[in-house]
Amino acid sequence: MLPKGMATFLPEAAVHKRHIEETVLSVFLSWGYREVIPPIFEYLDVITVGMGEDLIEKGYKFVDRGNGRMMLLRPDVTPQIARIAAMLMADVPKPLRLCYRANVFRHEEEHAGRARELFQIGGELIGLGGPEADAEVIAVAIEALQKIGLKEFKIAMGQVEFFRGLMNGIGLSADLQKQIHAAVIRKDRSRLTQILNRANMPENKSRQITAVLSLFGQEEVIEQAWSLNTFSACRSALTRLREVFRILLSSGWKDHLLIDLSEVRGFDYYTGIIFEVFAKDLGVPLGRGGRYDSLIGKFGAPCPSTGFAFDAEQLQWAWQKSVGVVPENAVDILVHDTQRDMIRLFRLTRTLRGKGYRVIQHVEKMNADEAMSRAKMAGAKQLFFLLNGEKAVLIDCRTGKQQSGKIPVLLSKLT
Amino acid sequence: MLPKGMATFLPEAAVHKRHIEETVLSVFLSWGYREVIPPIFEYLDVITVGMGEDLIEKGYKFVDRGNGRMMLLRPDVTPQIARIAAMLMADVPKPLRLCYRANVFRHEEEHAGRARELFQIGGELIGLGGPEADAEVIAVAIEALQKIGLKEFKIAMGQVEFFRGLMNGIGLSADLQKQIHAAVIRKDRSRLTQILNRANMPENKSRQITAVLSLFGQEEVIEQAWSLNTFSACRSALTRLREVFRILLSSGWKDHLLIDLSEVRGFDYYTGIIFEVFAKDLGVPLGRGGRYDSLIGKFGAPCPSTGFAFDAEQLQWAWQKSVGVVPENAVDILVHDTQRDMIRLFRLTRTLRGKGYRVIQHVEKMNADEAMSRAKMAGAKQLFFLLNGEKAVLIDCRTGKQQSGKIPVLLSKLT
Repeated sequence: MLPKGMATFLPEAAVHKRHIEETVLSVFLSWGYREVIPPIFEYLDVITVGMGEDLIEKGYKFVDRGNGRMMLLRPDVTPQIARIAAMLMADVPKPLRLCYRANVFRHEEEHAGRARELFQIGGELIGLGGPEADAEVIAVAIEALQKIGLKEFKIAMGQVEFFRGLMNGIGLSADLQKQIHAAVIRKDRSRLTQILNRANMPENKSRQITAVLSLFGQEEVIEQAWSLNTFSACRSALTRLREVFRILLSSGWKDHLLIDLSEVRGFDYYTGIIFEVFAKDLGVPLGRGGRYDSLIGKFGAPCPSTGFAFDAEQLQWAWQKSVGVVPENAVDILVHDTQRDMIRLFRLTRTLRGKGYRVIQHVEKMNADEAMSRAKMAGAKQLFFLLNGEKAVLIDCRTGKQQSGKIPVLLSKLT
Repeated sequence: MLPKGMATFLPEAAVHKRHIEETVLSVFLSWGYREVIPPIFEYLDVITVGMGEDLIEKGYKFVDRGNGRMMLLRPDVTPQIARIAAMLMADVPKPLRLCYRANVFRHEEEHAGRARELFQIGGELIGLGGPEADAEVIAVAIEALQKIGLKEFKIAMGQVEFFRGLMNGIGLSADLQKQIHAAVIRKDRSRLTQILNRANMPENKSRQITAVLSLFGQEEVIEQAWSLNTFSACRSALTRLREVFRILLSSGWKDHLLIDLSEVRGFDYYTGIIFEVFAKDLGVPLGRGGRYDSLIGKFGAPCPSTGFAFDAEQLQWAWQKSVGVVPENAVDILVHDTQRDMIRLFRLTRTLRGKGYRVIQHVEKMNADEAMSRAKMAGAKQLFFLLNGEKAVLIDCRTGKQQSGKIPVLLSKLT
């Protein structure tokens, strides 16, 4: 009945989703990020300027009936933020700190079992090219994960400029770079060896390239990489990575940090430090991000930038597995009027809401037991059972304790 | 660059939008409504079961690449809630109180200047057919408007069953009913007279029909309508309207209530009391709703229901015009490190965020005056200007008052 991969959040799941969203957003706000809300679809030709082929391919497209132009349901939010920064906020002094909560849409084959509607919560730090900016976005991510209550998570930091510097330094053809890149993405050592052999790569260069696959671990990985070659682009890439790593180390986050120089995904898009967030027992990253200094220029206002986004649903999984769930707590009091006296009922529940209670009002024909079971089902803590005149019974749904009396008196006995 | 009618919310507007959303939602929650989050698109054939032709016509459609089925970007949320109630929550005892905040998409001609992405905040009370339910949803709407801070708003209550009862009572053909309905919707008296004349309608019947156009005003309208005919369907319709009106009157909302029996929009969909919310000086309703007892049955589980939705953008307009705006208050403190000592800076801002401050950190090369103007632009109340060693200056951005000292000492002087 529902398209595959499209979710409906029933009340309990919705409460969890909102809890995660608001927690992460509050951390962004505490760092001075400001929320923006971009539209769900845009003209294909405008917004795809900054998108990779695969993302455009996965996007849902349709024709605008007004003028026949092609529309794209956003498969990613960052290009929209880039457009906003370059075109709508060009006059606002940089740096800009912007955040968002937004769903994105990606066509996935049905058998892949992947969601087609993803809920992202992310932020972009626009206008800063320095290591403090790279460190800031990772720090925001870590603080958000901590605020949610996650304990066992890892930030795997990469640096695409190291790999780029290596390939350019060795002087590989564009075609060969492409083949090598594809093999490294898949961490496919035998495929990589095959490519290098076929290209008659000298052994020392082959070793330099193949070694990338092993550049995964703690801080010592940076020194391993340093000793691999002397290309200046690689050196500056590693210097940057070391700076950022040390800032984060000094915040006491050693156990959360990993280096992974073999991670080279998004190579055409990213231009510096990248990172992915992993939680224990979850194969899919909770989020990812990195530096993308050439995106905003495509919208006419070149500007360095870095950012990341969480996948809210993955965050929710990780949270439910490790932290547990918040109870929905939908209702405090169910008020049942046995006399169907609407005027009295509406007035009373209004008074109660004014005191901050969440109240359900109820006039169906039922006795106290039935009303009690209804109150319990609704999750109410108390049942206010209105009788003739001013008489009523106040029942505690957990203990069953009853108090009878006049309504105004019972009002003062609400817990 | 942007499709017409599609909005981008920049930070200030986003703050306002979230404020409105959260305020309205908090009122729904205080009445025991639970949020659900339906997907943005669904299979056309599934979800249009409960939609009028015009809405389907306005919907954005595209083909699912997986199986070639037609998808519809939701032009309305209520049919989705009906689907959820009938199919996913069929086992949950009624009544169900569900609410949502969701965007809907409707194609509008470019020259019409209307939004194509509408932001709705609404709720449905499912499983109750009585007047207490009709009154409840209107009461929720009124309390939400009051909580937002609006003072001058009107709820125009109609009752489609009165008009239906009249047309059936007189015994008009389906075709004639359609013509008359169209003229009444447009409140087009001369067109209506023309139709009735051409149909050779006896004068007393003509008068009964034409009189509907004047059934607009305070409570006395109900009595005027009562005297117009004796059809029993009309009598029960008016009895219901009177009951609901009186419940709302008793809550002290007389000044907000109007009766409008000439309002017959959504005639195929609504089955009882309907209402529209108007604010002073705004031509477009802030919201509308009503009873729709036959919708949920189309998804297989017949069930009476009533509900309404606000148009969040119209609410925002009304609120900005009459209440003013909440300041964004994005930042409390801007911390500027003249020494670019990242480790010190990250530690200090983390301490500040831990105390609940919103903090922007800053390492660009600039003097105190420049940092000050940057702090003001960011809306910060204080500038924390870090110097050599442990020295720093704390500056109040409003008064310009400066305090020099060691960082730990200044920390205790933050306002």
